[in-house]
Amino acid sequence: MALPPPPARGFASDNTAGAHPAVIEAIARANDGHALAYGDDDWTRRCETLFRDLFGDVTTLLTFNGTGANVLALMALTGPAEAVVCADGAHINVDETGAPERIAGVKLIDLPTPDGKLVPDQLDDVVAATRGVHHAQPGTVSISQATELGTLYSVDELGALCERAHGHGLNVHLDGARLANATAALGGDAETLRAMTVDAGIDVVSFGGTKTGLIGGDAVVFLRPELARRAEYLRKQVTQLPSKMRFIAAQFGALLGDGLWLELGHAANAAAALLHERVSGITGLEVGPAPAVNSLFPILPPAAIAPLQEWSFFWDWDVARHQVRWMTAWDTTPADVETFAAGVEAVVADALG
Amino acid sequence: MALPPPPARGFASDNTAGAHPAVIEAIARANDGHALAYGDDDWTRRCETLFRDLFGDVTTLLTFNGTGANVLALMALTGPAEAVVCADGAHINVDETGAPERIAGVKLIDLPTPDGKLVPDQLDDVVAATRGVHHAQPGTVSISQATELGTLYSVDELGALCERAHGHGLNVHLDGARLANATAALGGDAETLRAMTVDAGIDVVSFGGTKTGLIGGDAVVFLRPELARRAEYLRKQVTQLPSKMRFIAAQFGALLGDGLWLELGHAANAAAALLHERVSGITGLEVGPAPAVNSLFPILPPAAIAPLQEWSFFWDWDVARHQVRWMTAWDTTPADVETFAAGVEAVVADALG
Amino acid sequence: MALPPPPARGFASDNTAGAHPAVIEAIARANDGHALAYGDDDWTRRCETLFRDLFGDVTTLLTFNGTGANVLALMALTGPAEAVVCADGAHINVDETGAPERIAGVKLIDLPTPDGKLVPDQLDDVVAATRGVHHAQPGTVSISQATELGTLYSVDELGALCERAHGHGLNVHLDGARLANATAALGGDAETLRAMTVDAGIDVVSFGGTKTGLIGGDAVVFLRPELARRAEYLRKQVTQLPSKMRFIAAQFGALLGDGLWLELGHAANAAAALLHERVSGITGLEVGPAPAVNSLFPILPPAAIAPLQEWSFFWDWDVARHQVRWMTAWDTTPADVETFAAGVEAVVADALG
Amino acid sequence: MALPPPPARGFASDNTAGAHPAVIEAIARANDGHALAYGDDDWTRRCETLFRDLFGDVTTLLTFNGTGANVLALMALTGPAEAVVCADGAHINVDETGAPERIAGVKLIDLPTPDGKLVPDQLDDVVAATRGVHHAQPGTVSISQATELGTLYSVDELGALCERAHGHGLNVHLDGARLANATAALGGDAETLRAMTVDAGIDVVSFGGTKTGLIGGDAVVFLRPELARRAEYLRKQVTQLPSKMRFIAAQFGALLGDGLWLELGHAANAAAALLHERVSGITGLEVGPAPAVNSLFPILPPAAIAPLQEWSFFWDWDVARHQVRWMTAWDTTPADVETFAAGVEAVVADALG
Repeated sequence: MALPPPPARGFASDNTAGAHPAVIEAIARANDGHALAYGDDDWTRRCETLFRDLFGDVTTLLTFNGTGANVLALMALTGPAEAVVCADGAHINVDETGAPERIAGVKLIDLPTPDGKLVPDQLDDVVAATRGVHHAQPGTVSISQATELGTLYSVDELGALCERAHGHGLNVHLDGARLANATAALGGDAETLRAMTVDAGIDVVSFGGTKTGLIGGDAVVFLRPELARRAEYLRKQVTQLPSKMRFIAAQFGALLGDGLWLELGHAANAAAALLHERVSGITGLEVGPAPAVNSLFPILPPAAIAPLQEWSFFWDWDVARHQVRWMTAWDTTPADVETFAAGVEAVVADALG
Repeated sequence: MALPPPPARGFASDNTAGAHPAVIEAIARANDGHALAYGDDDWTRRCETLFRDLFGDVTTLLTFNGTGANVLALMALTGPAEAVVCADGAHINVDETGAPERIAGVKLIDLPTPDGKLVPDQLDDVVAATRGVHHAQPGTVSISQATELGTLYSVDELGALCERAHGHGLNVHLDGARLANATAALGGDAETLRAMTVDAGIDVVSFGGTKTGLIGGDAVVFLRPELARRAEYLRKQVTQLPSKMRFIAAQFGALLGDGLWLELGHAANAAAALLHERVSGITGLEVGPAPAVNSLFPILPPAAIAPLQEWSFFWDWDVARHQVRWMTAWDTTPADVETFAAGVEAVVADALG
Repeated sequence: MALPPPPARGFASDNTAGAHPAVIEAIARANDGHALAYGDDDWTRRCETLFRDLFGDVTTLLTFNGTGANVLALMALTGPAEAVVCADGAHINVDETGAPERIAGVKLIDLPTPDGKLVPDQLDDVVAATRGVHHAQPGTVSISQATELGTLYSVDELGALCERAHGHGLNVHLDGARLANATAALGGDAETLRAMTVDAGIDVVSFGGTKTGLIGGDAVVFLRPELARRAEYLRKQVTQLPSKMRFIAAQFGALLGDGLWLELGHAANAAAALLHERVSGITGLEVGPAPAVNSLFPILPPAAIAPLQEWSFFWDWDVARHQVRWMTAWDTTPADVETFAAGVEAVVADALG
Repeated sequence: MALPPPPARGFASDNTAGAHPAVIEAIARANDGHALAYGDDDWTRRCETLFRDLFGDVTTLLTFNGTGANVLALMALTGPAEAVVCADGAHINVDETGAPERIAGVKLIDLPTPDGKLVPDQLDDVVAATRGVHHAQPGTVSISQATELGTLYSVDELGALCERAHGHGLNVHLDGARLANATAALGGDAETLRAMTVDAGIDVVSFGGTKTGLIGGDAVVFLRPELARRAEYLRKQVTQLPSKMRFIAAQFGALLGDGLWLELGHAANAAAALLHERVSGITGLEVGPAPAVNSLFPILPPAAIAPLQEWSFFWDWDVARHQVRWMTAWDTTPADVETFAAGVEAVVADALG
């Protein structure tokens, strides 16, 4: 079957995208002579101010990547003999090669969820099931917003979950690798961000930059600064202290300075919505509900998967169900979507004979 | 006392420098559309080729920073219930906030050295002192080249140390955060690098990029690829897997592609040599021997230290002895050196009254 | 309601029992002057011989308790960046306060089971789901025989599971805290033990002594001695090296010397069978199938639970389902069973009004 | 050379001795039917009372052995990114196979000492040397009383060290594997114990039982109970929760109940003093000062060492200096000493020709 050229930007993941041009420019501008290392520089100080502008009186530590941010956050929040409660599909549980267990020494108690979202009653059950010295004691709840399944907690759901967690004495960590997408989807302004985090009762946020247009960089934002007591030391201990930190801070400066992060989150979401619209009518494709953020999890005719992946690569999601993942990025264009949707339509039709 | 303006580039550390312009350009060029994440991209493949051109048949894993590279290397080399033997002043022992102990779970057996360099007989002593089940068993020897004291192992010394280590069944790790400086000092070409590493018997190298002109990036080079069996998994587990890896690979491409790394290592060394020459005659200053690489550890009149640091910041080294550290970087110019030396002379004279 | 005196020996757990008199006598006899510490003594050497008599050419390390034995075994079997696959109800997963994660640094991948028993196809699924560097790699399968639910793998099931595990390159650990009960149930002689372990393909066994009539002591038996390369060092590192080891070895001497362990395992099983028989006809009690080993998991009328526990304590199992656990020990007598069954009958009748 | 039969009880270590008869009897008496596991029994409750009688309002957790007690204590006392400061010859540093680093994840900062004893100014130096995020932060000071070199801190020295430690915000752990010997030597009554511990400012004690006449058992005594917040969970996590705890509690009951522990500590010390007296005049033997507790570290003619060890085994201490260790136990008799001293005299004379 003859197919047109694949889209210039594929649908494999939001980390296959490069960086926004403003980010590259910021790096170049920050390359201006000498500056003290490890964050004692003007770029980092400005970056910290930008995070305070977003969140209020917080302590922010820049890190290299999201796994590092998560491990650092969990280590700061979780005490001796304690465990981290999370959804079974959480990135910390299935995509970090056991980093939390190995580095933080914590047990993960992963709970089944249909949609990647914990509900308050699950916390009651975990607490009831772990009474006594034979069980690692729940210390932290870690949730993802958006989730790894492309779903979103509502602001009310977040508030209810945090309230229940705090009622049990648990801290709440939010893995926000795609927090820009979530914020764009739920309101699209800084008020939305605060409603989802500070006001909802989240204690610490992993604020994703890498998937939102940086070359690389994430941040741990301690919404309750008292939880950061040893965090600067822990950042170094978990190998996440950048020496030339200005180059990460400058990237965040470009991203946060004038709302670019929200614009990019919105762009990725819009591209996913367009893709959903374009493929919804294709016979033989189960595309599922409209995406909350920037990923679709369609079920394809088995014979269509390999040819499509060969044409424009994307990842399998659930092989047994012939389910795959299509993900848009900050730079996915409408033309990319149209091209891809056309290819899908053609290959699916061909596969169905 | 009136002083002229301080040098444009100070002498605090080689990580206060920014990146070489070619590195920034390489980042910008790599920002070219989509590429698969986690190293499945052309920049990373080219980078691996460049490391093979340098070292031969090796396995190279890029990391974010030097502490990450060291922890990954030690974890790959050191087995259960084993320890890492190092000099007391080793970066892994005194400047990584206990990361090796916490993440790799290894004990560090640190040995006293006058000059930062281990000698073969010390390995015999350690092995003799750790017979029996009550002692963590030496598994890896970790050395630094150049050392944290600015000294160098000769090629013969490295060979003798590796031979003794291997005779005891120990692996040898080389922390090469400043390997460019060392290579420039000992011969200045790729043959020198191979003589110091592959031919000397080193098993795994942490190859430093950050201090040699990158915005950030180091590499673990497994000179014996069979030692890398689980290393890719470990890299992720220790939080050091860059998702948009092309941006680190492209930096290394610029650094290694045409010998820039050696040029920059030489430049830093030459600046340190010039500084040593310019301050050698200053009364009241104990400047010590000519630097092997890019750092001096002079002893100053106590009253001169604070005013000089206020004028152009540098770090204390041994407060009790009034010893400080002056370090040059890849971009330190002769004019920087002349300006700094003049300031030192003036302040020291003033301090001595 | 007036109840007769409770049974002299309750049904809370097999670790509420004391030690067999022969074990106490063995301790007293071993208290005979001086002997070198840490296992360099005649009692330990004899004990090792007894384990070789049972299992063949094995390496045996005595430990203080079962959690220690399990952690030591998992640490010896599981490599860097690897995970341990187990049933969701496994003792290592739910009753060891996160010791495997914290000490061994391994991730546990716990799989749902209706009966506490893994099946081979689950291993295929785990291996398929963990391809790639983002996932801790399955390294060891850990199973319990008898399981924590009082069920047994048949010899054929064990063989099939080991074969599948080995086919995937995984080691197999057997948590045998109640291996005496299992052996008694499946044949009752040393041939049964070997069929279940060595012949089935198990690599390492945690051999339980504490629950089988010792005051305290378990053993890690390396059926493939090459896996024990660093195990003696690891035993010390995980705090499980007894200094006056003769006193644990002597206990095992009494237990293993003339088949006492099988006799005691059989006694506990027989008591559970009798209890099952005696309570099977009680209206309002769901007693479940006849026990494979020494525990019942009956469902009681809610109003009966607290009064019964107050009379003769036992543990809740699943509060939501009003399910409890009754467990017999090596010393449970028929009279204990009759007394307890009579009490159950009376309280249940009373609760049902 | 013909030698008489060696002493019935040798001088290898205090853990080559068995248990005091009262301890064996206590074990036998505790073997009285069923009792709840994990410390919910009368023996453990009585044992806790005995520790409160000794120390005041403390929380005591029984453990299997000294390494386990130490690791548990360090883990309870030392926070994230913190280090433990100790003497270079501390048991935790050189005789626990890296257990503190592996299990507690802490860095050990070991300081040189001529006599096994830290002095307050060393704490100032460590604190000064670890300012900043690149260094594991001192969190706990761990000292041994008696030290591994057989020396003692005076009560005043302990008070001064604790005061300095607390002034720096550090907790103080005392490894009391031989606390009975120390107490016997410094006064011999409970007041001495309290002066050395509670009154001096110690925060947590590892109270040794194994070397003082038990078959096995140690205790972590939290002199400041608030430090024990998660300690019961940690005990299980570090594999040190005895299930049939009554058998360890009963041993301590015998040891502590009527001052037996002090009697046995005194007996070992007296035997060492007698040995020192008997060998002091032997030509060719450098016996050193009179022992503070129960060990001597003499220097022998090289040719005498092997023959003596073959006759009545003891351990080398510093092979290069021909120094060995002779240690007495709670059951060493004057006759043992006389026999041993006579053998030493004969072999040394023979070696000197």
